[in-house]
Amino acid sequence: MMGTMFVVLDGVDGCGKTTQAERLTATLRASGRQALHVREPGSTQVGERVRALLLDPELSMSPEVETLLFAAARRQMLDEIVAPALAAGQVVVCERFHPSTFAYQAIAGDLKPERVMDLLLGWATAPAPDLVLLLELDVAEATRRRGAATDRIEAKGAAYMQRVAAGYGDYARRASERGDASVRVIPAAGAADEVASAVWHVVEPCLR
Amino acid sequence: MMGTMFVVLDGVDGCGKTTQAERLTATLRASGRQALHVREPGSTQVGERVRALLLDPELSMSPEVETLLFAAARRQMLDEIVAPALAAGQVVVCERFHPSTFAYQAIAGDLKPERVMDLLLGWATAPAPDLVLLLELDVAEATRRRGAATDRIEAKGAAYMQRVAAGYGDYARRASERGDASVRVIPAAGAADEVASAVWHVVEPCLR
Repeated sequence: MMGTMFVVLDGVDGCGKTTQAERLTATLRASGRQALHVREPGSTQVGERVRALLLDPELSMSPEVETLLFAAARRQMLDEIVAPALAAGQVVVCERFHPSTFAYQAIAGDLKPERVMDLLLGWATAPAPDLVLLLELDVAEATRRRGAATDRIEAKGAAYMQRVAAGYGDYARRASERGDASVRVIPAAGAADEVASAVWHVVEPCLR
Repeated sequence: MMGTMFVVLDGVDGCGKTTQAERLTATLRASGRQALHVREPGSTQVGERVRALLLDPELSMSPEVETLLFAAARRQMLDEIVAPALAAGQVVVCERFHPSTFAYQAIAGDLKPERVMDLLLGWATAPAPDLVLLLELDVAEATRRRGAATDRIEAKGAAYMQRVAAGYGDYARRASERGDASVRVIPAAGAADEVASAVWHVVEPCLR
């Protein structure tokens, strides 16, 4: 089937994931493909309820609990949405995936990165993304674009967000070191149009 | 401090966990100890919301997703309730713990038991229970006592419950094979008074 593919867009809060996922989905559709835009955690009923729990400013939980909840929502989304969509020949564009858990919970949350990756790769394994695009943006600029913190995780503050950004960098470096070409860093400081072109430039040649 | 201890009561739905946990808590208090009765998943705000999700008959999820959600609720309970209570010198009596996940998700849900135990021991590690009491009751009798199925997991039917019961047996056998004396099987077919005596007979000598 034409163009079946699982693409992840990830990066710090405010880097433009939603805008770029919408642009990419529109471009895919304009090229005659069926494309589905999902976000994580969420998109399923189970995931939306887990999302509400994770972002509730009234609650307090450890990075371990966060990791387990994100993994549960992710597995549900893979089973319920991504696998059937790929089987039906669609392109799936997903906001957030393993890199988010690596950056927020492992690096910024101070868990052992290997332990977190073992959990994710063991329990939210398949389907695996064909492409993981990391939108790279300076934290100060991302914070400016994002506006005021509105949920429990955003409210963790600037030092936490700096560690998150370093976590994404670390994720990209590790992928490169093991020769995993599915992970690509895309500079996201430019205008939305420019970034969308850069994204399409990477995605288009990978479409079958 | 006198009597600090973490005791788990586990077994198939309808085996008498709640009754026995209440009895044990009352006996501990009557003996001059501080005792706290918790249930799993639940007891914390995060846990109660995860519990509602897990038992919602409108939802459908894989044993992997269930396992991750149970592990998240368990870790939250350990962090938020069990660790502080033990530090304050209390005895914690908890309904359900690792044996439930082993029996329901691994054995009845057909996941690799080692994979499930690695997750639980890696992510919901501490504090570990001092005693794990498995209430053993024939499934037909447990079903009779329990009444009609009311939630998503109970509704999985008799063949599933038979596999769950076999899972508890397997959990006890594995503990015995590795010489883990903290796991004990307690026959639960008798009257509540008899079972309560048998439970106390095991718990009392372990109290410091």
